[in-house]
Amino acid sequence: MIVNCVAYEEGRKLADIPKEDISEYLKRPNCFVWVALKDPEPAELDEMRDEFGLHQLAVDDARKGHQRPKIEEYGDSLFAVIHTLEPKDGELNIGEVDIFVGPNYVLSVRSHSEKSFTSVRARSEREPHLLKYGAGYVFYALVDTIVDRYFPIIDELETELEAIEGSIFNNNTPRSNIKAIYALKQKLMTVKHAVDPLLEATGRLSGGRVPQVCEGTQAYFRDITDHLQRIHGTIEGIRDMQTTAIQVNLGMINLNETEVTKKLAAWAAIIAIPTLIAGIYGMNFKNMPEYDFAYGYPVALVAMIGIDVLLYFWFKKIRWL
Amino acid sequence: MIVNCVAYEEGRKLADIPKEDISEYLKRPNCFVWVALKDPEPAELDEMRDEFGLHQLAVDDARKGHQRPKIEEYGDSLFAVIHTLEPKDGELNIGEVDIFVGPNYVLSVRSHSEKSFTSVRARSEREPHLLKYGAGYVFYALVDTIVDRYFPIIDELETELEAIEGSIFNNNTPRSNIKAIYALKQKLMTVKHAVDPLLEATGRLSGGRVPQVCEGTQAYFRDITDHLQRIHGTIEGIRDMQTTAIQVNLGMINLNETEVTKKLAAWAAIIAIPTLIAGIYGMNFKNMPEYDFAYGYPVALVAMIGIDVLLYFWFKKIRWL
Amino acid sequence: MIVNCVAYEEGRKLADIPKEDISEYLKRPNCFVWVALKDPEPAELDEMRDEFGLHQLAVDDARKGHQRPKIEEYGDSLFAVIHTLEPKDGELNIGEVDIFVGPNYVLSVRSHSEKSFTSVRARSEREPHLLKYGAGYVFYALVDTIVDRYFPIIDELETELEAIEGSIFNNNTPRSNIKAIYALKQKLMTVKHAVDPLLEATGRLSGGRVPQVCEGTQAYFRDITDHLQRIHGTIEGIRDMQTTAIQVNLGMINLNETEVTKKLAAWAAIIAIPTLIAGIYGMNFKNMPEYDFAYGYPVALVAMIGIDVLLYFWFKKIRWL
Amino acid sequence: MIVNCVAYEEGRKLADIPKEDISEYLKRPNCFVWVALKDPEPAELDEMRDEFGLHQLAVDDARKGHQRPKIEEYGDSLFAVIHTLEPKDGELNIGEVDIFVGPNYVLSVRSHSEKSFTSVRARSEREPHLLKYGAGYVFYALVDTIVDRYFPIIDELETELEAIEGSIFNNNTPRSNIKAIYALKQKLMTVKHAVDPLLEATGRLSGGRVPQVCEGTQAYFRDITDHLQRIHGTIEGIRDMQTTAIQVNLGMINLNETEVTKKLAAWAAIIAIPTLIAGIYGMNFKNMPEYDFAYGYPVALVAMIGIDVLLYFWFKKIRWL
Amino acid sequence: MIVNCVAYEEGRKLADIPKEDISEYLKRPNCFVWVALKDPEPAELDEMRDEFGLHQLAVDDARKGHQRPKIEEYGDSLFAVIHTLEPKDGELNIGEVDIFVGPNYVLSVRSHSEKSFTSVRARSEREPHLLKYGAGYVFYALVDTIVDRYFPIIDELETELEAIEGSIFNNNTPRSNIKAIYALKQKLMTVKHAVDPLLEATGRLSGGRVPQVCEGTQAYFRDITDHLQRIHGTIEGIRDMQTTAIQVNLGMINLNETEVTKKLAAWAAIIAIPTLIAGIYGMNFKNMPEYDFAYGYPVALVAMIGIDVLLYFWFKKIRWL
Repeated sequence: MIVNCVAYEEGRKLADIPKEDISEYLKRPNCFVWVALKDPEPAELDEMRDEFGLHQLAVDDARKGHQRPKIEEYGDSLFAVIHTLEPKDGELNIGEVDIFVGPNYVLSVRSHSEKSFTSVRARSEREPHLLKYGAGYVFYALVDTIVDRYFPIIDELETELEAIEGSIFNNNTPRSNIKAIYALKQKLMTVKHAVDPLLEATGRLSGGRVPQVCEGTQAYFRDITDHLQRIHGTIEGIRDMQTTAIQVNLGMINLNETEVTKKLAAWAAIIAIPTLIAGIYGMNFKNMPEYDFAYGYPVALVAMIGIDVLLYFWFKKIRWL
Repeated sequence: MIVNCVAYEEGRKLADIPKEDISEYLKRPNCFVWVALKDPEPAELDEMRDEFGLHQLAVDDARKGHQRPKIEEYGDSLFAVIHTLEPKDGELNIGEVDIFVGPNYVLSVRSHSEKSFTSVRARSEREPHLLKYGAGYVFYALVDTIVDRYFPIIDELETELEAIEGSIFNNNTPRSNIKAIYALKQKLMTVKHAVDPLLEATGRLSGGRVPQVCEGTQAYFRDITDHLQRIHGTIEGIRDMQTTAIQVNLGMINLNETEVTKKLAAWAAIIAIPTLIAGIYGMNFKNMPEYDFAYGYPVALVAMIGIDVLLYFWFKKIRWL
Repeated sequence: MIVNCVAYEEGRKLADIPKEDISEYLKRPNCFVWVALKDPEPAELDEMRDEFGLHQLAVDDARKGHQRPKIEEYGDSLFAVIHTLEPKDGELNIGEVDIFVGPNYVLSVRSHSEKSFTSVRARSEREPHLLKYGAGYVFYALVDTIVDRYFPIIDELETELEAIEGSIFNNNTPRSNIKAIYALKQKLMTVKHAVDPLLEATGRLSGGRVPQVCEGTQAYFRDITDHLQRIHGTIEGIRDMQTTAIQVNLGMINLNETEVTKKLAAWAAIIAIPTLIAGIYGMNFKNMPEYDFAYGYPVALVAMIGIDVLLYFWFKKIRWL
Repeated sequence: MIVNCVAYEEGRKLADIPKEDISEYLKRPNCFVWVALKDPEPAELDEMRDEFGLHQLAVDDARKGHQRPKIEEYGDSLFAVIHTLEPKDGELNIGEVDIFVGPNYVLSVRSHSEKSFTSVRARSEREPHLLKYGAGYVFYALVDTIVDRYFPIIDELETELEAIEGSIFNNNTPRSNIKAIYALKQKLMTVKHAVDPLLEATGRLSGGRVPQVCEGTQAYFRDITDHLQRIHGTIEGIRDMQTTAIQVNLGMINLNETEVTKKLAAWAAIIAIPTLIAGIYGMNFKNMPEYDFAYGYPVALVAMIGIDVLLYFWFKKIRWL
Repeated sequence: MIVNCVAYEEGRKLADIPKEDISEYLKRPNCFVWVALKDPEPAELDEMRDEFGLHQLAVDDARKGHQRPKIEEYGDSLFAVIHTLEPKDGELNIGEVDIFVGPNYVLSVRSHSEKSFTSVRARSEREPHLLKYGAGYVFYALVDTIVDRYFPIIDELETELEAIEGSIFNNNTPRSNIKAIYALKQKLMTVKHAVDPLLEATGRLSGGRVPQVCEGTQAYFRDITDHLQRIHGTIEGIRDMQTTAIQVNLGMINLNETEVTKKLAAWAAIIAIPTLIAGIYGMNFKNMPEYDFAYGYPVALVAMIGIDVLLYFWFKKIRWL
């Protein structure tokens, strides 16, 4: 589905144009065309391929989807694959944006993603002095927007880690802690797979030899790279803490086991001692003078209770209870 | 065994030729010969060596088999070793394809592998505009096909990981979970050994100085490299999760131990308390008034049962039962 | 808030100047202006941007804060982000210093940080032969001061590690040990995130092609890099020991469990044996000669006690008690 | 001890020569001398140093032994240290071969190693077209032979890993499993220390700038590098699986503990329940009608046995027994 | 404290000179001065700085001490920091040697270290043909001596590892095993911090562009680098085994726990069964014919003992005892 198809000249919008006119506008100097597709049909992609002269391998990738993030050069044009991440029901929904950039066109293809890029268009059109950089700047604006949308997700993951840290040491929910740590790890991996390859790719747009369409925008791509590096650093930090958290949780589980065993031992002693006394006074020797004492029975009971009270406080003191 | 021996000219099939005529066709300009062997005899390899002028070291590798994946240059020709992976009885069967590529020939040698490459031949012959690139394109088509066959295997491993994740938290099959995690790891290593060296090798065919036979097909080899990088990323992701899974499983086992100990303690208490009461009323003191009460016995029984009922609900409440 | 605004010439202070005069002084040769802001308003930053011609992306970073440490070149000027670390209530408070350096100006922006840089200014003014290097030297002095403030924090972390090492083997506070190890790890990560990116950035100022403003001060920046490498090495060392400490603590917890189980077993035996004897002499066989012995009862009691004493010393000997 | 001292010309053996004549043959063009020493005396090494003009540092290394594998250039000659690995009584015996190679000589010094290199000499003399490459080819042949002798050792380690994998899941020999895993790790490290530095060293002989004596044999050294990479890959694979195996074994030990605890709990219940019943009917209340029932005793016994049978099958069902 | 102050010419000692004459000798061609300080006062360092024209940053480092090992270039002179390691009371005492090397001087500053370098001086003076290389060779001789002193320490660590390996599988000292592993790790880290940065630094003196004072001695510095690499390899090997050892020890602790639990269970059964029998014959049913049997009591006792003997051997057989 075509979402938008607009021609720009000297940083200003010329007109919304029908897709049939694209090739005409492409011929005008200082003019570029920006087309946005959403979950396109194969036929639409083929049309665009013919219109813009896209490379078949890139179009194949866009058609198939589920690519890893990358930015590839095909002659003087670029093909970029970027993941979008949208939280949904506690999971992360992975979408994909494929961007084809040439000297005088930008084609963005959005799939499995709900958030649109109308804000990018609006922002770009508000800044004609930047939009004058041409297709390269639009490319930057798109990537920048997608990358900025990673930040709240990272924040969310940090919050989850803090929640886990809080509950690990409270110790009464080890099972759900393990689950939470594992779920956090899964989300981390999803973000990592979106960020790390992209970081590598944008790095090549900001230093050394730069593709022609990105010339003049290196500082902007360095800014994106910097954002991605920040996200990357945070992810690695969470991963590191999460690895420690899993070991800490294991330690707490084992500690808990020891405490249960101590409790078991303490209560066993408290029950076993009077049982032993009762056993002794259940013996059938003829000659057991206590049997005939008037207070034999109550004294025995008091002894049982007294010993148990002492034991109880002793176990309290050594923290087995 | 010779599977095929065909001469091509300008991207089109000339003819199936007998192996004796190979050297003749090699002399014709714009012509290349594509020979496919399957589990060949040493003598067949020697024949091919003489026909195509292959390097002895490469032929030795092909004869011995069990090489690690690699792409080596010998003068203006290439020698590639690639693993094929075919699932069989829950294990991964490792085969090997050795490919010799020169300016005007392709020799593929398939060993221990059941899937043929007839589809590659068919596809290549349907695209004469690509086949015109010559031996380099055939080489690409072969490698591409083998790499594409890795994807379903990777998908299968992801499914296995998900199954393990599902059953870890159900907790009643820790033994089979451990086995499954270990088996998954073994398969991962097999795929990793097939993919990682190949990734390194194809990377050198798509950028920087490229061997002459691959000139003009760099974009295609970059596409393969990209596929391999995707597989590599997925493998690393599974490995990472599997490492966490093993620790999580250990945590669950220890948690389970604690729960068993708690159950043991709870039931021990439930049995020990009435045993103690029975012990007390088994004492032989003369002066135990309860013995003469009409309802002494039923009251004692009721006390036993009552205390146990209370204990039972108490242990339920603190989740020891 | 403007903390300071001073013009320097030939390494000597000219005058405190109002911000309106900055542009005037910037035109004088051999003269540079050093402005220090603290938690500035957006408007103040914009003013400075216009005064010094700062790049919008850098100003945006300074405005937003929470950047990762970095040193970026914008034309012939530099933009640096550096973290300050100040211990507060047992945690590490992260502040940020953003420094803009051009051929004839230094603008430092301090946020969320309590320690001022008046000492830097004083020290620089005391060494006019160094201050003659210009803005580059001031930049060095600022970075050097911030980095030197990392050392006491690292020392503190080493002390914490030693305290943990001491208490791990005493074994009676495993729970607080785990917490302390985890807290140490958290602080380590904070310092690591401040140090590692900065190390990478300063490394580029001391070797190879160096930005113009830093020319002549390479040896100084190498000194900073060396300090950072020392901190980095110490952090990695603590991290490594902390990983081992967590495993050692787990080992101690499990060892403790075994010791509790041994104690439990020993005491269980000490109680169970006399209970068994009492049970035997509670049997109702007619023909039990012991029942009629005059000393049956005391002998039984002595036997119980004697066996228990033997058991007790036996368990002491094998160290189960 | 001098094992061999032979002069070669144009790839063919000239003669066995006495060591006094070496310098004479060294002067002849197209001629090279190949000397093999075994566990030499210091004096013999000094003689060779003077004969061939070896560097003192290299001779010192050869004298001291216990070097790490390496290939060093001294002017136009090479000095190589390579480990030999020979299995002996279940351990790996580390020997050392030091090779000095110059334009017209090869000196091999074998220490602590039982396998000789007569096969290398025989093979080289059978292939005069290769031996014509001169000292560089002899060097290749020696290294190739040593490296090929690593393969059976690696195979043996793989077999040991498989044996461990088999017995881990059988679970009745955890103690010997741990020992076997540790012993495997020790051997792996030995092989790793032999292979990894050598891999690095041979890599430099096959690509980029190559020492003069190795010119023309790059493809051969690439072949060795490839073999070493295969070994390296296998070692890393075994290491990886061994790390997992140690965790799996720990999991199995803990699982085993749980199973023992479950068995303990089950049998405790089976004994405690009838003990409780016996206790109840050992109470001395006057009013216990069961005491007078004709079948009181057998009914009690049957109840005890019946409950235990039920418990037994219940525990079987929930797999605690 | 000045330990030595000697002038050399053409590889031979000229004279012990007072420090006031240093500048005079520095002017003579082919002459160099070698000064050795030990735990110097700040004033002594300042004197030397003025005498030799040392860089202030380097002198500051030497004054402060506690630097990480490094070799820095200041113009045509070098500044090196190297750690000395001396075992003392089972710990490793870290000292520091700072070396300033210029075209015609060597200044070594030894701190916190007991072993002197008189042997270096003696050795150097015995080899005038090497000492002719000048200050660079003295520098080499000093570094070489310090590095050679690392070897016995590494050997000691290997011996400690072997001792730990021996006692882990004996299993009766898990607590001291953990302590020993941790202490080994601490020492390893100390050596690692001394060796790794130095390895990096010396590597730069043996290949590529080399500082002028080290020209002609590259092969010697490569030799040092090689020694450091050997130490580095050994450290990494010990670290690797130590990581495995800690896991193995954990496994043994858990295995031990299982064995204690098994023993507990076995003895519990051996005591509980006769207790149950005694309980049964303590019941007060009227109709218990056994009570009147003449041999009821002894038969019961024999049954108790018989069952226990059977149980004992059964538990022995299944290795729970």
